[in-house]
Amino acid sequence: MDAATQLPTVGMIGAGQLARMTHQAAIALGQSLRVLAGDPGESAAVVAPATTLGDYRDLDDLRAFAKDCTVVTFDHEHVPQDALRTLVAEGVDVLPRPDALLHAQDKQAMRTRLGALGLPQPRWAPVDSISDVEAFGLPCVLKAATGGYDGRGVWMIDTPADAQTVLASGIRLIAEERMALQRELAVQIARSPSGETAVYPVVETVQTGGICTEVLAPAPHLDPATADQARRIAETVATELDVCGMLAVELFQTSKGLFVNELAMRAHNSGHWTIEGARTSQFEQHLRAVLDYPLGATDLAAPHTVMANVLGGAPGGPRLDERLQHLLADDPGARVHLYGKAVRPGRKIGHVTVCGDDPDLLRRRALRAAKWLQEGE
Amino acid sequence: MDAATQLPTVGMIGAGQLARMTHQAAIALGQSLRVLAGDPGESAAVVAPATTLGDYRDLDDLRAFAKDCTVVTFDHEHVPQDALRTLVAEGVDVLPRPDALLHAQDKQAMRTRLGALGLPQPRWAPVDSISDVEAFGLPCVLKAATGGYDGRGVWMIDTPADAQTVLASGIRLIAEERMALQRELAVQIARSPSGETAVYPVVETVQTGGICTEVLAPAPHLDPATADQARRIAETVATELDVCGMLAVELFQTSKGLFVNELAMRAHNSGHWTIEGARTSQFEQHLRAVLDYPLGATDLAAPHTVMANVLGGAPGGPRLDERLQHLLADDPGARVHLYGKAVRPGRKIGHVTVCGDDPDLLRRRALRAAKWLQEGE
Repeated sequence: MDAATQLPTVGMIGAGQLARMTHQAAIALGQSLRVLAGDPGESAAVVAPATTLGDYRDLDDLRAFAKDCTVVTFDHEHVPQDALRTLVAEGVDVLPRPDALLHAQDKQAMRTRLGALGLPQPRWAPVDSISDVEAFGLPCVLKAATGGYDGRGVWMIDTPADAQTVLASGIRLIAEERMALQRELAVQIARSPSGETAVYPVVETVQTGGICTEVLAPAPHLDPATADQARRIAETVATELDVCGMLAVELFQTSKGLFVNELAMRAHNSGHWTIEGARTSQFEQHLRAVLDYPLGATDLAAPHTVMANVLGGAPGGPRLDERLQHLLADDPGARVHLYGKAVRPGRKIGHVTVCGDDPDLLRRRALRAAKWLQEGE
Repeated sequence: MDAATQLPTVGMIGAGQLARMTHQAAIALGQSLRVLAGDPGESAAVVAPATTLGDYRDLDDLRAFAKDCTVVTFDHEHVPQDALRTLVAEGVDVLPRPDALLHAQDKQAMRTRLGALGLPQPRWAPVDSISDVEAFGLPCVLKAATGGYDGRGVWMIDTPADAQTVLASGIRLIAEERMALQRELAVQIARSPSGETAVYPVVETVQTGGICTEVLAPAPHLDPATADQARRIAETVATELDVCGMLAVELFQTSKGLFVNELAMRAHNSGHWTIEGARTSQFEQHLRAVLDYPLGATDLAAPHTVMANVLGGAPGGPRLDERLQHLLADDPGARVHLYGKAVRPGRKIGHVTVCGDDPDLLRRRALRAAKWLQEGE
């Protein structure tokens, strides 16, 4: 609690773009986000005051960081369980709690738990040998149980030789059936320690090379029964896993129904559309949830919203500043969010959001805007 | 220009709530606002990194601050003309330029110039003696030519004795006729160095004790001809005075038509509604304008938006954090902006915005929300 402003201080472990956008939301709530950064040049560290430099794997760094925070939460899910459990034992309010966060850190724990809850998910099994993989059946998907993101830690396996290469890495793996997808959906839901939940409209996510490149809100032509089912799945996961904060549930839509793909217990790329497209952004909602503030309205603020990610383009071409000016001239209604990162090919350096009435037009505008920033043409 | 991000650095002189909200907008554009603060506890200084501490009246402090900025602009209009002219002579890009800013700093210069442009304004005269005031006629309004804001520096004069009290202060004054108002209106317009302008819909402002307490966007029941006239006045002022950045034109609506009340060459309280209510906020638009970026769309993002200011309430009662939680529970759709200031009676400590279809309902919601934060009940 800050004595001058009479308002709390939220600490976020990690200083990427999620922390950066959370800082914007914290400012509106009268606060200033405290971030733990590994490097002073990180996305949130360059826009927030009093950044703490430290290692999220180091208990002493975490302890020192947590000291002045009302609550500690996450920009990413890579903080070790034992460190988090120690902080909690020492009285730090860590949200989501380690018991919940485990399911976003460890796909095997997540699959085991969702199975026990009877939620629909791809057929899966832990595997640690080629015979396990062959017993599971090919083709399949191999996933690193921990540490993967944005398509890393996920391998499409067609042959035993493919599997052998991945198994040789020695990392803990699970196998999942490769499903025939109609498309991918996602649901954002917030839950507070007192048990209040607030679920956002279901969105469609478009992936390219394992990276989410587009989000369409609400998901076009989604039948109400499927939308209800998606929201019920999110409610069940949030409540049964005792999530506090934002939860993103990524879903496969198939001819056989919905299946849970991944969970994230933080603001998520599939929820960036909420900054302009919903009455409350996922970033403010996460702060409200972890502070046990009443949650904000999740209504749509526009009939349709499309978000497109901007990836760093190939070296050369116009500077980012020039690309930005071209885009702003080309589409005065586009909302740009740049993450203050050095441009590297394939790295997420920002996103663009457009709101309006015509989803097809919005999609063309969003992709055109992202392409301008990415390729400078 | 920041080497890592390939993006410019805007410096803002002053670190109040306008700078605070401009920092939020700068983050989206991939930047981080650089602010010159008088005290490390100021609104923007507590949320922005690398704040420079210094005196906005001190040329050396201004020089040191301007050194690493692509462009220097303002949170307030109190920076001395001679200091600004020196900076410009030394090659600093100061926007709005001193020649333009003068008209927001000095009401006598403003009235003289608007008169020369043939724009409608209250009858006025410079006064420096009781005989000047009596020659002008009573009742009237006396205004400090420089330094006033939020009702300070404005006196309603009914008798020669009232005038004598104000004259005794020795400050430079102008007299203005006291007009019979139907209501007050305001127009936001942005203009960039290359001459592009973008004007927002005309809003109604509601003043209480000289302080703007409510803004209704768009102005209810405004006839299209009057709205056009208001926007044309704003265009004329922006262009003829060579304004760069945001310009707010405050207008009196009377039975005899529109009259220009005040000018501000920066983001302004009457434009806070644009954060949620327009496609581009005045804060982003100001950055775009002073960087000579293409300007953003000024369309409404919702049919109606109402903004209510939150003033510090009387001492005692619940802490701000508790008041905030009550408000968030009471109205999950209200958008809160707190300025991170210590609460003092009558001080602007935040504002609340609501968007929707029914302007009367929105107004009740906005006032109720502001009252919660102000009075804790």
